[in-house]
Amino acid sequence: MTAISMYKISVPIFVQFLTSLSAVLDKTAAYAEARKVEPSVLLNTRLAPDMFPLGRQVRAATDHAVNACGRLAGVELPALPSADGTIPELKDRIAKTIDFLQGFKPAQIDGSEDKEIKITFPSGAVREFTGQSLLLNNSLPNFYFHCTTAYDIARHCGIELGKRDFMGTPVSM
Amino acid sequence: MTAISMYKISVPIFVQFLTSLSAVLDKTAAYAEARKVEPSVLLNTRLAPDMFPLGRQVRAATDHAVNACGRLAGVELPALPSADGTIPELKDRIAKTIDFLQGFKPAQIDGSEDKEIKITFPSGAVREFTGQSLLLNNSLPNFYFHCTTAYDIARHCGIELGKRDFMGTPVSM
Repeated sequence: MTAISMYKISVPIFVQFLTSLSAVLDKTAAYAEARKVEPSVLLNTRLAPDMFPLGRQVRAATDHAVNACGRLAGVELPALPSADGTIPELKDRIAKTIDFLQGFKPAQIDGSEDKEIKITFPSGAVREFTGQSLLLNNSLPNFYFHCTTAYDIARHCGIELGKRDFMGTPVSM
Repeated sequence: MTAISMYKISVPIFVQFLTSLSAVLDKTAAYAEARKVEPSVLLNTRLAPDMFPLGRQVRAATDHAVNACGRLAGVELPALPSADGTIPELKDRIAKTIDFLQGFKPAQIDGSEDKEIKITFPSGAVREFTGQSLLLNNSLPNFYFHCTTAYDIARHCGIELGKRDFMGTPVSM
């Protein structure tokens, strides 16, 4: 029996959907080149004026993956650029995130269900989580939210994508 | 130690985000009334011509939740309307889905990690899953995809919503 675990519901999932997000950025770059559109125009597209644009959605997805696994394992978080950058820079950010995630052994994350994790948000607000509530009720939904919205913005721009581009391929880890 | 389980990563998560999706529909109805817009105009809005509109995104979210838990537990799936309907009909569909989910005892879903599940898709294609691969690599990502895209369409229509409306409130089950 391959019991479910905190590692299995985090690292391979983040890697799967970050890999597909990187491929969505490839199609975004190809679209920009074919249509002679500045890639930054696409990266700055929003679905509503008070929503993050495509580039920032990508950054947010990587942040949630890095922060979740780093905090569950209790390791130092890698330094990633605080700006969104170009498509190659965003792809590099995703690659660094995947490298960080692939460095975890299951034992570093498994068993973190009850771990007390206190997070101070940029607003100054402090929230206390357990490992389980952080991952299930905060990190995973936020991660999926930003991956989906990045995809939705790209679709809205007219980039040729289908559900398979969002889903990617399950990874064995 | 409150170990993670197949039940914990499915039923309470589906209930949380279906509840918030229903509240997004309330705000959609209120917006339609305030702006004298036909609710069906909002429900038929798409982010791209070959994407599902808002109403169908809601239906897809309920389908993934019902199918995942029904198949993991091996119980008959409830009969839900095959059309999208009006806002009240979609809210009723969500309510019926939540009722169905709340009827499960953890023991019905826990331990289903290795369960063999064969699904025949409308296209006729057959795919074999384990309980774990169905939930982690198919149902949950699709569920989040459709909940997020429903929210994104509503935001794009100008309905006043914030991230909290998407996230809702974690449920204890």
